[in-house]
Amino acid sequence: MQIPDFRKKRTRKGFKNVSELRKDLVSGEWVIIATGRAKRPKAYAKAKRKKFNQPISKCPFEDPQASGNGEPLLIYYEEDKKKKVKRSNKKVKEWSLQVIQNKYPALGPGDCSKIYKEGPYELMDGAGFHEVIITRDHEKHIALLPLDKVEEVVRAYQERYLFLKEHKCVNYISIFHNHGREAGASIAHPHSQLIAIPVLPSDIKRSLQGAKKYYKDHKRCVHCTMLKWEREERRCVFQNEYFIVYAPFVPRTAFELRIYPREHKSNFEEMTDKERRYLAEALKEALRRLYKGLKDPAYNFFIHTAPCDGKDYSYYHWHVEIWPKTAIWAGFELGTGIEISTIEPEEVAKFLRKIK
Amino acid sequence: MQIPDFRKKRTRKGFKNVSELRKDLVSGEWVIIATGRAKRPKAYAKAKRKKFNQPISKCPFEDPQASGNGEPLLIYYEEDKKKKVKRSNKKVKEWSLQVIQNKYPALGPGDCSKIYKEGPYELMDGAGFHEVIITRDHEKHIALLPLDKVEEVVRAYQERYLFLKEHKCVNYISIFHNHGREAGASIAHPHSQLIAIPVLPSDIKRSLQGAKKYYKDHKRCVHCTMLKWEREERRCVFQNEYFIVYAPFVPRTAFELRIYPREHKSNFEEMTDKERRYLAEALKEALRRLYKGLKDPAYNFFIHTAPCDGKDYSYYHWHVEIWPKTAIWAGFELGTGIEISTIEPEEVAKFLRKIK
Repeated sequence: MQIPDFRKKRTRKGFKNVSELRKDLVSGEWVIIATGRAKRPKAYAKAKRKKFNQPISKCPFEDPQASGNGEPLLIYYEEDKKKKVKRSNKKVKEWSLQVIQNKYPALGPGDCSKIYKEGPYELMDGAGFHEVIITRDHEKHIALLPLDKVEEVVRAYQERYLFLKEHKCVNYISIFHNHGREAGASIAHPHSQLIAIPVLPSDIKRSLQGAKKYYKDHKRCVHCTMLKWEREERRCVFQNEYFIVYAPFVPRTAFELRIYPREHKSNFEEMTDKERRYLAEALKEALRRLYKGLKDPAYNFFIHTAPCDGKDYSYYHWHVEIWPKTAIWAGFELGTGIEISTIEPEEVAKFLRKIK
Repeated sequence: MQIPDFRKKRTRKGFKNVSELRKDLVSGEWVIIATGRAKRPKAYAKAKRKKFNQPISKCPFEDPQASGNGEPLLIYYEEDKKKKVKRSNKKVKEWSLQVIQNKYPALGPGDCSKIYKEGPYELMDGAGFHEVIITRDHEKHIALLPLDKVEEVVRAYQERYLFLKEHKCVNYISIFHNHGREAGASIAHPHSQLIAIPVLPSDIKRSLQGAKKYYKDHKRCVHCTMLKWEREERRCVFQNEYFIVYAPFVPRTAFELRIYPREHKSNFEEMTDKERRYLAEALKEALRRLYKGLKDPAYNFFIHTAPCDGKDYSYYHWHVEIWPKTAIWAGFELGTGIEISTIEPEEVAKFLRKIK
């Protein structure tokens, strides 16, 4: 399929745009792509990353229970059952992944039915759950794990999600992963987190409203519309039977990638066993290409899925967003919500597609 | 005025909340105040800040024109006219502040009337202006400048705003200041920036919608409602005849401060000479207290004011937001828009009020 290049139409004699404003199809938000001061993809590969000063001997996640964490909420063991390790002077099976309660939770027990007042303001108990999903290896993060282990991570997300969504105080569950100190990780050992909250986050609400409006106006899903375009467009990075990885037309950060199920699905947790394996592959592929292309960048990723508050969100399309930490949001970004990217997603995709 | 403490009502036997969820009165957004893992105010004073490696001899803002910048768009001179300096072998008056075009602008010339299409997406030329407001001293930032010089900064903001708002492509003007490398500043020499854009930023649009809705529902300004409460409440940090500085009930970052005109005013640029002097005092006071209390933290500040697109925004109340860089937004914050603060704004205000 031949894509007409809108840039050609815009080039005027002796004139070059310093940037373009792109509008997000779901939220209506704008970003600036500063093409005039665009950098080459490799310029984003930082030579020096902030190091963690956390040797394995002091790591709280090597033996979470010995480090004062409670019993695992979920645990997977090494498949090779003969492989035993010594813990607290006992020979035990080696674990492969475990989920624990966060020792310093952002939310905890509370009454989610009451709204308190202070003058004109409203507030609630911080009622909810805050869990940590830990893989066994101290060094190997998702980009470097074998596919089986990545699939375990995704399976743990799904299991905990299915368990927590039934709680009356849980209306939204955010699953996320912080890699690197620049991305806000405070513990070196690879881990993901899950926060279950009683309210709908504003960003999710907006994303839902945008999707609903588009559905009403166009009688089809806004994400499906984008996927149809991106599948054949120059921003696709990787695809398998069930998932697509692409660099969005309107990125919130340089090198942002998104993973979508190719079929219209609203709820992450309804994934089949087979689909889960393909998601693990897509996630690993996306992170591996960023790892190689940008030399192990810091990043955050998170899942955007329909709320679990019992309402109908069939118009929504769940997905994963991966945000490499390529810049600091400063006064303009914080004051307006408009990000400035110094690389086009088209260039990002071209660069990442080539990585073997 | 005795304020009833909502916390007392919430304390149950043998039970302590780990956090509370607070709802923003304008936007409806939530934040988490993690009272359970609250830190003491002094814990936010970082001993080590990232240093700039920019000696005065290599500073591009010591003599902007010699560094390849164009002629100033606005220049103020030292009042003492006898104070002359040698530049390019000529004796010239020393400048005190100058505004230049950004050498690497995020926006530039372009056609703001055309919307281009790429498949389902829309985009525009990045048409607009990007200027830099530079004060003379290489080291002294706003917290340390004499009041006269701070007033010059605010005057320059206002003059450039009044000039640019008349341009047909300018619908919103963002004025902001980045201090410190952690806050995204790339040049050590103190400077502010101004970006004039053809579209309404999404954050501003939301802020306007929230204010408009409150006005319709309550027949009064939402910001005036908050100010009335904060003037007497425990979150006020400083006030003078025309302005109030307070730590908002729903902060987006720990130690956030806001400066509001006490009277209902929609447009920053309509400030009188007298008001401007009081704003300079409030701005200096806010930044000075953060400087002393947190040992020169990195921060961003920006002005939120009514758009200049010719529509009626009389329900809006302009203000300044100051966001010290006290934490990194990670996967949860980026994926939900919900920030987690580990200090109550009440504590922040108490701490900053005491600073002399």
